[in-house]
Amino acid sequence: MKQEINLHKNEFLEELMEFLRIPSISALLEYKNEVNRGAEWLKASLIKAGLENAEVIETDGHPIVYADWLHAEGQQTVLVYGHYDVQPADPLELWDTSPFDPVIRDEKIFARGATDDKGQLFIHLKAVELLMEKHGTLPVNIKFCIEGEEEIASPNLAPFIHEQTDKLAADTVLISDTSFIEKGLPAICTSLRGALALELQLETANTDLHSGSYGGGVPNAVHSLVRLLNSFHNEKGEVAVENFYKGVPELTDELREEVGNIPFDEEKTKRELGLDALYGEEGFSFQERTGIRPTLEINGIGGGFQGEGLKTIVPSKSEAKISCRLVGDQDPQEIYRLIEKHIEVNTPVGSRVSLNQLVHANPVSIDSTHPDLQKAADAYEKVYGVRPLFPKEGGSIPIVEVFARVLGAPVVLMGFGLNSENLHAPNEHFHIENFTNGIETVCEYLQSL
Amino acid sequence: MKQEINLHKNEFLEELMEFLRIPSISALLEYKNEVNRGAEWLKASLIKAGLENAEVIETDGHPIVYADWLHAEGQQTVLVYGHYDVQPADPLELWDTSPFDPVIRDEKIFARGATDDKGQLFIHLKAVELLMEKHGTLPVNIKFCIEGEEEIASPNLAPFIHEQTDKLAADTVLISDTSFIEKGLPAICTSLRGALALELQLETANTDLHSGSYGGGVPNAVHSLVRLLNSFHNEKGEVAVENFYKGVPELTDELREEVGNIPFDEEKTKRELGLDALYGEEGFSFQERTGIRPTLEINGIGGGFQGEGLKTIVPSKSEAKISCRLVGDQDPQEIYRLIEKHIEVNTPVGSRVSLNQLVHANPVSIDSTHPDLQKAADAYEKVYGVRPLFPKEGGSIPIVEVFARVLGAPVVLMGFGLNSENLHAPNEHFHIENFTNGIETVCEYLQSL
Repeated sequence: MKQEINLHKNEFLEELMEFLRIPSISALLEYKNEVNRGAEWLKASLIKAGLENAEVIETDGHPIVYADWLHAEGQQTVLVYGHYDVQPADPLELWDTSPFDPVIRDEKIFARGATDDKGQLFIHLKAVELLMEKHGTLPVNIKFCIEGEEEIASPNLAPFIHEQTDKLAADTVLISDTSFIEKGLPAICTSLRGALALELQLETANTDLHSGSYGGGVPNAVHSLVRLLNSFHNEKGEVAVENFYKGVPELTDELREEVGNIPFDEEKTKRELGLDALYGEEGFSFQERTGIRPTLEINGIGGGFQGEGLKTIVPSKSEAKISCRLVGDQDPQEIYRLIEKHIEVNTPVGSRVSLNQLVHANPVSIDSTHPDLQKAADAYEKVYGVRPLFPKEGGSIPIVEVFARVLGAPVVLMGFGLNSENLHAPNEHFHIENFTNGIETVCEYLQSL
Repeated sequence: MKQEINLHKNEFLEELMEFLRIPSISALLEYKNEVNRGAEWLKASLIKAGLENAEVIETDGHPIVYADWLHAEGQQTVLVYGHYDVQPADPLELWDTSPFDPVIRDEKIFARGATDDKGQLFIHLKAVELLMEKHGTLPVNIKFCIEGEEEIASPNLAPFIHEQTDKLAADTVLISDTSFIEKGLPAICTSLRGALALELQLETANTDLHSGSYGGGVPNAVHSLVRLLNSFHNEKGEVAVENFYKGVPELTDELREEVGNIPFDEEKTKRELGLDALYGEEGFSFQERTGIRPTLEINGIGGGFQGEGLKTIVPSKSEAKISCRLVGDQDPQEIYRLIEKHIEVNTPVGSRVSLNQLVHANPVSIDSTHPDLQKAADAYEKVYGVRPLFPKEGGSIPIVEVFARVLGAPVVLMGFGLNSENLHAPNEHFHIENFTNGIETVCEYLQSL
């Protein structure tokens, strides 16, 4: 297929750039119309690829886009999942070029969503399109189920999957929304951390107060928040919420070896990211901390006067966003209750805290010896000349666990991104080489099933 | 004068509202023209009051407005100081009416700057105007020196005072920029806390990172800031910066009694401000904590994602604004060095901190037995029917210490505000009764000198 891909490369990239120009930010209400536009664009593109029964399915949130081609009688059915929504783009001032005006530089395409997940998702559309063009048919039955709410934790896809088990029934679920170990070294992820996210608002008074007249004599909403948030970790970098680690798998020598096999270049990572030092739970390696250990991270904080110059107030309000990554048998709802209790116990006197749960997702594990995963590894090897590794990924794709459980099918996490591609950050990009090689790999894989 | 004041009341209020409509926010660069407009308006108003030699004097920052009347041969010279600049108005959403569109409600005038300090300053202009109108002359020589940078700690007034000691020479400095104990109970402040303000920026990486891929394995700029800021206070509510309390006067029984004599209604304060509890340094009363003890307050904090919804990042940048109130022999520059050292020692591994000093001011004490202060007390007593108290104020008016030291004159802090008037906060207002009684009190005072 290499030849066909090269022939179409510029045309495919033009189309992908069109997709990336749509600011389909699911988290921000004011982008609702753009998310809808993304869904319609995707539907048209699926039809162009040769898929049938394409529809934009409304939900209580953003729509799901579905299409299929089911004429490979007696053959396996593959369900392709992906998402057309993207993360917010701020801080805008740190982007070298506009996030929704894609540009190609150094054989990379720069835009919000380039690697997460529009670029990776588009690989599957183009693989199907090329196979159809070349053979007039497909080697397998295929279904596309693409959502617009992955970046806000898929609140409407899970119920949809539960309701539409017949429509979605498949032998394999195929997803490209993960990363290589490093450039040239592909990976099939076999574990995803679960997630829990919440926001917290703290209040001490009904108005900000003059720090001269009241300073030193009344609670300060930023002091209280700082004290409360600081209580979430101890000096060893461990999460200090009582019973937080219940359900976390014991770190056996075998697991430690498996995780240790995934290469990690500490000096390179520090250099590239501008880190003076790594940091985390004492007694664990970077791969363990980010792959198989749970975390609690503050994602944002705000309170008091943040403008230019000076405002000598005692702040009356503050807030924080917190998210956890969970592993093993940690249950997000139970962790939420533990955090709630921790906050109750640790909130300083004179502060009122309100809590709001944003998302929750269970951790998931996939058996790397399953034939569908091994065939995926073969396809990578043919294209990239190297057999992929089976790492345990630190991120969460909440819906993977639901697909695996409800459809009872193995999930093949056939990623084509790189961790260095600034996903969720300014200057997100996608390597064009992995876009074209990705199309070839997916073609190989579908033909091998 | 009561009669004359009543005759002119509506006209004076109209003029004050005109003054309040000018958003002369000194802290925000984009308001530079408005600050200039405030200065020109004030100059015209001083001329209207009968003052001479009125000028708008340019500085490296915002202008100083000067005017005088020096024909009371053989009489004392009084220098009136005030400021025509105001605090920023945010958070705008908490104002019931627009901050720069003054309205009168329940015999109060609502606007940013109503009490701090345009309303209080305007009392002096109108007192002079009425005395001139009635007698065609003034009982004392008078100079007005009004600045536009008080809310940013007077960076250009101090050098001006040093350079213009002849121009500003006076027997008494008269300032109305402080508050009553409570409605109906006036106060002449005899102590002001010094101040030191700084901003702090913390960085861990050159970009925000995905909390799935990196969470738990790299430093988090919000965690680091939270840990660092939490180290500034201990469990007793004391400032934990080494040697911070050096130079703080010992709390003698006499001082404790003096401070304790100033009435304070804890339940009323809590109810009015929506406080569940008071909080501060262990072993001290509210009056002591806010009047004669030093403080370190975080005025604002920010970092990571603060938008609507969720963004699962490990933040790479965070920042905070901090200010101290200082007492006794605490030297702001020395305190800055102690804080710098504290930050050096307490910054978590993997975090880089940069520091920027915003303002500094020395504490000041004024002798309440000085005849000029006693005459001021007499004037209050005549108008309000009650002798004022001599409290030690928690706020800072940095220039007071400079006036006292450079001009060698007693400073009479003849305030007409109320602490409940939301200075530096939304819905700032000024009681019209204190505006009119204030004019009468100042007339009485000037005539008594």
